[in-house]
Amino acid sequence: MSIENDLINISKDKAFEKEGFKSLFGLTIEVEKEIILSIEKGKKKRLISLFQLLHPADQADMLERLSKNNLNLCLNLLGKKLELETLVFLDDEVKNEVIKIIGTSALIRALPELKTDDAVEILEELNESDRSIVIKKLPKTERMLVEEAFSFPEHSAGRLMQRDFLSFPEYWTVGQTIDHMRTTFYEEEKNFYSVFITDPAQRLLGELSLAKLLSNNRSTRLKDIMQFEFKSVNVNTDQEEVSLLFQQYGLVNIPVVDDEKRVLGVIIVDDIVDVITEEAEEDIFGLGGVRHGSIRSSIFETMKGRFSWLIINLITAIIASSVISLFQNEIEKIVALAVLMPIVASMGGNAGTQTVTVAVRAIATKQLNYVNLQKFVLRETWVGMLNGILFAFLSSLLAFTWFNDIQIALIMGVAMITNLLIAGILGTLIPLTLEKYKIDPAISSSVFLTTVTDVIGFFTFLGLAAWVIL
Amino acid sequence: MSIENDLINISKDKAFEKEGFKSLFGLTIEVEKEIILSIEKGKKKRLISLFQLLHPADQADMLERLSKNNLNLCLNLLGKKLELETLVFLDDEVKNEVIKIIGTSALIRALPELKTDDAVEILEELNESDRSIVIKKLPKTERMLVEEAFSFPEHSAGRLMQRDFLSFPEYWTVGQTIDHMRTTFYEEEKNFYSVFITDPAQRLLGELSLAKLLSNNRSTRLKDIMQFEFKSVNVNTDQEEVSLLFQQYGLVNIPVVDDEKRVLGVIIVDDIVDVITEEAEEDIFGLGGVRHGSIRSSIFETMKGRFSWLIINLITAIIASSVISLFQNEIEKIVALAVLMPIVASMGGNAGTQTVTVAVRAIATKQLNYVNLQKFVLRETWVGMLNGILFAFLSSLLAFTWFNDIQIALIMGVAMITNLLIAGILGTLIPLTLEKYKIDPAISSSVFLTTVTDVIGFFTFLGLAAWVIL
Repeated sequence: MSIENDLINISKDKAFEKEGFKSLFGLTIEVEKEIILSIEKGKKKRLISLFQLLHPADQADMLERLSKNNLNLCLNLLGKKLELETLVFLDDEVKNEVIKIIGTSALIRALPELKTDDAVEILEELNESDRSIVIKKLPKTERMLVEEAFSFPEHSAGRLMQRDFLSFPEYWTVGQTIDHMRTTFYEEEKNFYSVFITDPAQRLLGELSLAKLLSNNRSTRLKDIMQFEFKSVNVNTDQEEVSLLFQQYGLVNIPVVDDEKRVLGVIIVDDIVDVITEEAEEDIFGLGGVRHGSIRSSIFETMKGRFSWLIINLITAIIASSVISLFQNEIEKIVALAVLMPIVASMGGNAGTQTVTVAVRAIATKQLNYVNLQKFVLRETWVGMLNGILFAFLSSLLAFTWFNDIQIALIMGVAMITNLLIAGILGTLIPLTLEKYKIDPAISSSVFLTTVTDVIGFFTFLGLAAWVIL
Repeated sequence: MSIENDLINISKDKAFEKEGFKSLFGLTIEVEKEIILSIEKGKKKRLISLFQLLHPADQADMLERLSKNNLNLCLNLLGKKLELETLVFLDDEVKNEVIKIIGTSALIRALPELKTDDAVEILEELNESDRSIVIKKLPKTERMLVEEAFSFPEHSAGRLMQRDFLSFPEYWTVGQTIDHMRTTFYEEEKNFYSVFITDPAQRLLGELSLAKLLSNNRSTRLKDIMQFEFKSVNVNTDQEEVSLLFQQYGLVNIPVVDDEKRVLGVIIVDDIVDVITEEAEEDIFGLGGVRHGSIRSSIFETMKGRFSWLIINLITAIIASSVISLFQNEIEKIVALAVLMPIVASMGGNAGTQTVTVAVRAIATKQLNYVNLQKFVLRETWVGMLNGILFAFLSSLLAFTWFNDIQIALIMGVAMITNLLIAGILGTLIPLTLEKYKIDPAISSSVFLTTVTDVIGFFTFLGLAAWVIL
């Protein structure tokens, strides 16, 4: 293999230019295989040099893809060569495992090197007692900032924000500001995109992008070029709201302020991109009946996560079946009913799921509110009815050609309209009601819905048959 | 109402500070109601002043929430006062309607004021002939850039990129660079976050953040502080790949290069945030069987979109039912079979959907590849089998207590294991196979899957009953 020999001694920036390591995503299948090989053969030096070739985000991906056993081996081989920044990119589950393996003393050594928001993200994974041990050992300034972050609610802007930001008085000039940045940040790599203009009490007056700062003359005063219209968030705002602000206004950063409008920190878009992905994934997994969608979880963990959802579905299936059992006599006499009844139930379930999906997403993105609520419910009702009519016709035709019985055909049609209409109405009302009572509509809507469409589907179809035919 | 009288004459920045208009999202329900009122009463001046209070993104939201009729009225009342930037924030459906109403001449007037990527986004909505009419009328530079953008594939980095970027030779100093920016960008509002360092042929050598540029001395040469390790994308890269790069490495911008590594433009994170949301939504709607999830579509459009999915489901339901019809004699003799069979089918469908959801998401986020594929399929197989055993036990118990028949109970158990095991295996293989043949797994997986779990569920349960009992 050509990669085998020439990897160790090539410098970090050159390696990626070599054929075979040139990938859009850094961590190619070849590198992945090589790393696994070095772990299993215990080649410490080689493993370290391979890891150093990767961006911390790719190192994190690599750790996430290892089995529990290999993860342990890998971390032991890497030892202190593991870049702590990697932890920030890990998903919660693996982060937890890694922290357990490397221990709190490694954390104490490494945390002061990280930005406060990254340190907080890692500390959030520890249990209370371990966390307070680590926090106590931090240098004083770092400790105070971390402790303050933990005083804000979980998933709030306060937890997410970075404490380093640049703020200047409004009477400063562009030249003064640049000179100050030069003396303060020389040689340091920081990700700043705006400076904030504040009054003596640190209250926010305006915002100024670095690009604008750079394109104005040195003598210009900040107050003459700063932006008055800009968005800020309170430190207690939920991260979901913050992420909607970034999406709505295409922001790159947003200042975080306290109740007196004093700047406490800044949230940068790269942290929000994670939140957006997480929130969308929560909806996807919720609607699919999966609690944690990690493909890395062990068989047992996965099984446990799926089990609770399946048990709820078993109960709803039993409810639907007990509706069928009410009509055992009818089915015994006309077996065609048993053949056709799943069609009615399944069409209702699918139509309802369509409506639920749209409603859940519209709620999550705040598109649905009290002004357009009525219109939305009305539209779904109409769609349910019109598709109900179409599918009533189609399924009647089907039932008639199959069993050559006009009565069964008509009953099928009526049951189909009823079920699709109810699916449309409840597909909107169920998520809205759950949302009102602070239950996540993405997770719970579809259980309620399919229970109802199954029950209604079986009951109208079999009930009508019992009433009309027998 | 207190807002009624004092709105028109307050300036844009002051208005939001007034109680009642202070919302995290700008467009409050009060403002929305006020706007609808002014449209319906034809109050032109008031409507214009209300619109001017809103951020273009909020103006777009407002337009999206109007009925077709009100949208028409509103655009007529606004006339040339409609900020064209608003178009950029509209979703495709409404953008299309708005363009139809305001006409191509309004576009020709407004497009040169927009950034190229925004202009391209709007032009993409026009049909070929209208588009070429508009493009021909554009000023020369603008026209060339737009025409070039359309030469790149749809959804590629080339369509998404902004053509304004800053590139400098490596031997320039910080001072030279800043001075150049001052003379060139004075008074202009641009969103730049990095400058690119290029050779005389415009080939990319390095990247330098504005923050780093600002914190170095004027005499420092760019080549001494520029970043060598940075990401760039080829102009033909698909936007989904680009968005994964931003997510993976927490980027704020990325240079777009041609095959010779010459810089052509830059993609900024705010455009990618939209892509991330869109891609996640495609998965959500795909899995939910909805083609377009807009809550604004008309009843007829919505019905049409849902119909095609429901007709596919009708066909799969018929297939499942024809399996049942093979066993009509058995059901006639033991009606309990009709009562219990939906439980087996439904549990298989739900377990399979869980697996499909995880697989679809893992494929979309590139977590699943050829290295961990086998492990993933194996895990899902195990999970399917283990949950199969648990639910076989539970459902046997249920069947026995319900119908007091040990044979039916055992058959139920065997059918349940079989179906959950197959659901686990196919829940992984179906999306992977679809992906291989370039069919979107999010949209098509669940139809295939539930068809199979229904057929297997009914067939094993009823077939075993026919074989064992009768």
